[in-house]
Amino acid sequence: MRGAVLYAPGDVRYDDRPEPSIIDPTDAILRMSVSCICGSDLWPYRGISPSSGPAPMGHEYCGIVEDVGRGVTSIKPGQFVIGSFAASDNTCPHCRAGYQTSCAHRQWITGAQAPLLRVPMADGTLVATPEVPSPDMVPSFLAVSDVLGTGWFAADAANVKPGATVVVVGDGAVGLLGVLSAKQMGAERIIAMSRHAPRQKLAREFGATDIVTERGDEGVERVKELTKGVGADSVLECVGTHESMMQAIRSTRPGGSIGYVGVPHGVQLDGAELFYTHVHLHGGPAPVRRYLPHLIELVQNGKINPGKVFDLELPLEQVAEGYRAMDERRAIKTLLRNN
Amino acid sequence: MRGAVLYAPGDVRYDDRPEPSIIDPTDAILRMSVSCICGSDLWPYRGISPSSGPAPMGHEYCGIVEDVGRGVTSIKPGQFVIGSFAASDNTCPHCRAGYQTSCAHRQWITGAQAPLLRVPMADGTLVATPEVPSPDMVPSFLAVSDVLGTGWFAADAANVKPGATVVVVGDGAVGLLGVLSAKQMGAERIIAMSRHAPRQKLAREFGATDIVTERGDEGVERVKELTKGVGADSVLECVGTHESMMQAIRSTRPGGSIGYVGVPHGVQLDGAELFYTHVHLHGGPAPVRRYLPHLIELVQNGKINPGKVFDLELPLEQVAEGYRAMDERRAIKTLLRNN
Repeated sequence: MRGAVLYAPGDVRYDDRPEPSIIDPTDAILRMSVSCICGSDLWPYRGISPSSGPAPMGHEYCGIVEDVGRGVTSIKPGQFVIGSFAASDNTCPHCRAGYQTSCAHRQWITGAQAPLLRVPMADGTLVATPEVPSPDMVPSFLAVSDVLGTGWFAADAANVKPGATVVVVGDGAVGLLGVLSAKQMGAERIIAMSRHAPRQKLAREFGATDIVTERGDEGVERVKELTKGVGADSVLECVGTHESMMQAIRSTRPGGSIGYVGVPHGVQLDGAELFYTHVHLHGGPAPVRRYLPHLIELVQNGKINPGKVFDLELPLEQVAEGYRAMDERRAIKTLLRNN
Repeated sequence: MRGAVLYAPGDVRYDDRPEPSIIDPTDAILRMSVSCICGSDLWPYRGISPSSGPAPMGHEYCGIVEDVGRGVTSIKPGQFVIGSFAASDNTCPHCRAGYQTSCAHRQWITGAQAPLLRVPMADGTLVATPEVPSPDMVPSFLAVSDVLGTGWFAADAANVKPGATVVVVGDGAVGLLGVLSAKQMGAERIIAMSRHAPRQKLAREFGATDIVTERGDEGVERVKELTKGVGADSVLECVGTHESMMQAIRSTRPGGSIGYVGVPHGVQLDGAELFYTHVHLHGGPAPVRRYLPHLIELVQNGKINPGKVFDLELPLEQVAEGYRAMDERRAIKTLLRNN
């Protein structure tokens, strides 16, 4: 088969790869009609995260179960399933506490930008939808796998409550779905930090009540103005740079909460500064598995349409253009059709 | 009057100071039979925090109201009152959210190691006991003012719940009262990190179920052993050094919580490391005012006896020896009799 392979920064190719097969008896093989590119794929693509040699890319997925190992009991061939970017046993103490991305047997998924994918620990990792969805629903189910699950965790970690004033730092797909998540959780006011018209528009569609175009200290000042000097109850940090993290911390009211999901690059927190801000800080790789049943239900019932974040659709063979478009911020998120 | 004045690192004196008087109409003047020395007083005493010129010392206090300004309505002369180390209006949005140490009009108290003290914003800052307590109760009420209130906040910020496994990093007076607080909140297992026999003994008296003498990575490993590899649900960081903070973070289970109240000195947190630990982090200067009514009630009803942390009692004129004894860890906490 052919799928996306990163050879070096800026060099991603539609290339031959061995077809995956069952290795462990707890594995499943999925056939996927679509895949997509994640904001976090841009870190190695830009050379900011190290990558070594040809690396199969992609970790967001949903699709039809093609085969399962003999140890798989709950997942069956023919089902449409969704998993998370981290395979998890869903039985260890960390999984039971809802932190499946810290599973004692965690395995990071990779190689999902391809027609076939091997998923380890299928029973723990995958959740089936009630029925095989119609093709137009598939992008929204694909979004559940990572980008929505991550935005949802950001809002949950930021302790968004009904009536809350929320700030979302970052207008990438995760930030935009963080807006959607905060809205679902009952936030009254949602301030999206964005300077890109198409993203502002989508943020408003997802529930943003205010748009702030300023960044850094000016952005913080604007949030303070909008909140009568108090700061926000909940702030979602969906970027991962030092500047965005400090902006998030400084926009939060004392006693307020920050949910941070942008993979940190160069973030250094000064203990004394953090101490006097009185904020709550929580984040990490989103335990999407915890939220899958609820998010699948919201999509299934048409309550949310997170697939709207895909504003560019390409055949998988044009994956290189998909990366370029996201890198240059011409696209919010690229959907790849597998044939 | 005479009180404690810090002239330079290591040089604290029992010295003449002007007697305080009402300056603002919202002030109160307290007469105090006892005062005490805080672990945080040791930072400037050791020259780790900068201090400029002769500085009146002390910020923990309780006593009889001697006089109030004409704007004070709820506090009356003759009452026995307790306040926090931060004066607060108790009406601003931050106070109403329970973060009085981030009050929009916050004033840090200083000069309490003396027989008389001026307290600004008396109505917002002070809470009266139901009656003037007997002298043997006064040390426990004094402890409420800061050291217990801070240990309590550490446990609350660390989200201690009934049945929880808790680690307390730091065996100073705050850490020991963190143990007491965790016990009151229903913790089932309380692991105190301590290598000093008298402190271990008091920790056990306050509710510690396990003592770990190892520090740093070895301490973390020991906690992991005691928790079957999982880590603690809640960790109280009651020191403020980089090493103690990292020990706290690494002892916490994914999804667990750290309450940090040690004033950070040299603490630098790497965003990427923090991200993958999946911990909740909350702390800061303890909003003791929030807890005063509850803690006063617990002391009043004899449910707790936090005054036990005072293991050295000296007349105020020997304040220099009181600092030395704490600096050299000969004393956990020094009580100063004002005459």
